[in-house]
Amino acid sequence: MPHTRDQDVPIRQLLAGMKGFRARYYERRPDSMRQLVEEGQKPKILMIGCSDSRVDPALLTQAEPGEMFVVRNVANLVPPYQPDGSYHGTSAAIEYAVRVLQVSHVIVLGHALCGGIQGLIRLRKGEPDQNDFVSPWVSIASAALDPYIPPAQGDTDEERRKAEFERLQQKPDVIERAAVRTSVDNLMTFPFVRERVEAGTLELHGWWFDLDSGDLWAINSQTKMFEPVD
Amino acid sequence: MPHTRDQDVPIRQLLAGMKGFRARYYERRPDSMRQLVEEGQKPKILMIGCSDSRVDPALLTQAEPGEMFVVRNVANLVPPYQPDGSYHGTSAAIEYAVRVLQVSHVIVLGHALCGGIQGLIRLRKGEPDQNDFVSPWVSIASAALDPYIPPAQGDTDEERRKAEFERLQQKPDVIERAAVRTSVDNLMTFPFVRERVEAGTLELHGWWFDLDSGDLWAINSQTKMFEPVD
Amino acid sequence: MPHTRDQDVPIRQLLAGMKGFRARYYERRPDSMRQLVEEGQKPKILMIGCSDSRVDPALLTQAEPGEMFVVRNVANLVPPYQPDGSYHGTSAAIEYAVRVLQVSHVIVLGHALCGGIQGLIRLRKGEPDQNDFVSPWVSIASAALDPYIPPAQGDTDEERRKAEFERLQQKPDVIERAAVRTSVDNLMTFPFVRERVEAGTLELHGWWFDLDSGDLWAINSQTKMFEPVD
Amino acid sequence: MPHTRDQDVPIRQLLAGMKGFRARYYERRPDSMRQLVEEGQKPKILMIGCSDSRVDPALLTQAEPGEMFVVRNVANLVPPYQPDGSYHGTSAAIEYAVRVLQVSHVIVLGHALCGGIQGLIRLRKGEPDQNDFVSPWVSIASAALDPYIPPAQGDTDEERRKAEFERLQQKPDVIERAAVRTSVDNLMTFPFVRERVEAGTLELHGWWFDLDSGDLWAINSQTKMFEPVD
Repeated sequence: MPHTRDQDVPIRQLLAGMKGFRARYYERRPDSMRQLVEEGQKPKILMIGCSDSRVDPALLTQAEPGEMFVVRNVANLVPPYQPDGSYHGTSAAIEYAVRVLQVSHVIVLGHALCGGIQGLIRLRKGEPDQNDFVSPWVSIASAALDPYIPPAQGDTDEERRKAEFERLQQKPDVIERAAVRTSVDNLMTFPFVRERVEAGTLELHGWWFDLDSGDLWAINSQTKMFEPVD
Repeated sequence: MPHTRDQDVPIRQLLAGMKGFRARYYERRPDSMRQLVEEGQKPKILMIGCSDSRVDPALLTQAEPGEMFVVRNVANLVPPYQPDGSYHGTSAAIEYAVRVLQVSHVIVLGHALCGGIQGLIRLRKGEPDQNDFVSPWVSIASAALDPYIPPAQGDTDEERRKAEFERLQQKPDVIERAAVRTSVDNLMTFPFVRERVEAGTLELHGWWFDLDSGDLWAINSQTKMFEPVD
Repeated sequence: MPHTRDQDVPIRQLLAGMKGFRARYYERRPDSMRQLVEEGQKPKILMIGCSDSRVDPALLTQAEPGEMFVVRNVANLVPPYQPDGSYHGTSAAIEYAVRVLQVSHVIVLGHALCGGIQGLIRLRKGEPDQNDFVSPWVSIASAALDPYIPPAQGDTDEERRKAEFERLQQKPDVIERAAVRTSVDNLMTFPFVRERVEAGTLELHGWWFDLDSGDLWAINSQTKMFEPVD
Repeated sequence: MPHTRDQDVPIRQLLAGMKGFRARYYERRPDSMRQLVEEGQKPKILMIGCSDSRVDPALLTQAEPGEMFVVRNVANLVPPYQPDGSYHGTSAAIEYAVRVLQVSHVIVLGHALCGGIQGLIRLRKGEPDQNDFVSPWVSIASAALDPYIPPAQGDTDEERRKAEFERLQQKPDVIERAAVRTSVDNLMTFPFVRERVEAGTLELHGWWFDLDSGDLWAINSQTKMFEPVD
């Protein structure tokens, strides 16, 4: 894999960053890393976030190594419980965090301007797509669209339906938040999650980060509605 | 979801962290975030890392928002190309990063002391497991074990085989690195990855972070062997 | 200067920190430092802070290299204008910042739990001291005490005076803030400061950081009184 | 002090930075600050640095609150011991750090591209200056110039002298480092410094930071010469 100078820059920058990390966590203040190596990780939190480069969970929450076990996938989705022996990366991470690490909290962290949710809306709209994996994957949150755009039926007013899609594509916040809710609901389909939630040893959180304003919204545990935090 | 004081602490700390992020990226130095909101993300790198709380890719590389599109799953695995319409989170993220965002680099970032790789070794050893998802998931890297522990056969020397497992469980570095190699190989089974690699517009990298020493190893693009970087 | 292992640790840690700084500002993101080297510094702010290790102005304000020209001395004091040709470090820095760098703001940043202000109170109280420089230096702010503890006179009620000192030593906030005000007043005795303030090209700020609560207080430019900010 | 919008920006940014500091050190990870408030500061290091905005000691060394007692003045100078009862800010800070806080190390941190040292060279050259404080202050380091530019005498070759000044102004590194040495020497004129150094409980360090390359130089404790570190 020989490469040109310019293409190489981002890699050299990452390597310089690692040098900085090593200076900081292995030489400057080695205690916390040493402890994490010797005692193993004991995170209290499983964070399920989006792969989007603008919403890195560690940066957003100013975390230190060891604080959060993190899953990141397109649109921060949790599929339903489906123990069929095939490859389920997100479910495997949830299982590891809950059963092995015994975290106390699972947070599903959605965000504004999510490309995956835009894909979901286009998919429902019926736009042709040419991808192998993104469409099936984001269809996990398909139910999140139902209250806003009912599935197409013979007698639907086509004009009105089109206008509604237009509106949602312009302002998909409600879908992004509804998709977080779907993922939180799906978490409860995992038996080992449900039993811990019911026993009071595990809490589920649905968050949505407004990339535009910097505000965080969260599902209020009483009303079950999303509300700005703080 | 009412909760006790103590259990609540990690959540309140994350929220305080978000307040700090907002102060820093929306008030103190708003320019870069504003640009990322208005122009969209344009990361050059797809990073496929482990969910382990100790090896956060953004912290490890001192990244800023917008620099890396990040997938995190147990043991930083890439499954083979399997476009069967079911839920493939990691493959969807690879597709989105390569086809939509057109990143120039994909990095598979493995690390020492990986719980997922330990699970893989136990699985091959034949230890009984009681999980629904972790074992099928880590079996993606099963081929990584072959050069070290051949699959069980009728005539194998049982004592020697046991000793070899013992040794690998004590020092699984070679398996962790071999698993990174398997994931990089699997990346090449994705047609849209392969064609870009062959066209020279995409590079694949295999890295392994030695959590104990802080050193980074990378696959040398000439020799194809892992070597310490720098 | 050979030294034992233990005594050496803080130095080795600083050197590791510098390595991290170099990785970050010379390799990871070299642009801003390169610009500061090539174009010279152009800070908009002169910050006059205390030497206290807990109130570092750069950390407190999350500054980047190049943002603030910083003076730090015991109790963040500004002596009155005294151009007598002898060594005046703080005055030299003020002159350089205002006349050469042409900053737009001068901030005097005081703080709670200031050892220098405690020394000032003890000095007024008449406690014997055995220092060569600290007492003369902190006496710069002597006028700050006047409204609270009048200078000793023959007919003062000794008991009451003692109680008042006791009270001030327990809760010296008012003196710390009054000393900031004295320093801001002293800034106005510098002709080159006064003329710029009067011309509207320079602003003076008096701040006090409550180390206990983390709150910042500032002199309100209208009322001239200290008030919590935000 | 009413002010226009634009002039106000740097101040609003500092206030946002303080909000971020508060979020980080009072809410996110309150333990270390709480301890510093309750137990008082116990820094092991006195750092005497320059006011230059590009060489902030805390940023350069990636320090945390509580680690260093810091003096900053123009050209990081230490005047000679002069206990005459007038205002000596730097000497007061040295006294407080050494006698009250009992630090184990004093570091004089010089740097490349120092405006104060340029002033010193111009002063020796005989260029007219119109400042009240900077010239007297930087003259503290006057002896640093002697080996390079002997004080003017009747019989000096004027041309050669001029060329030497030219050369030094182009490349003042040697003077910057010699001035650090002068300051370290001056530290030894303070009786309370000398006795601790001789008792082995205090160490003096002379450092010079090459702003251009990011390299650090230090006085080798054996050879007494400046050498690149690492």
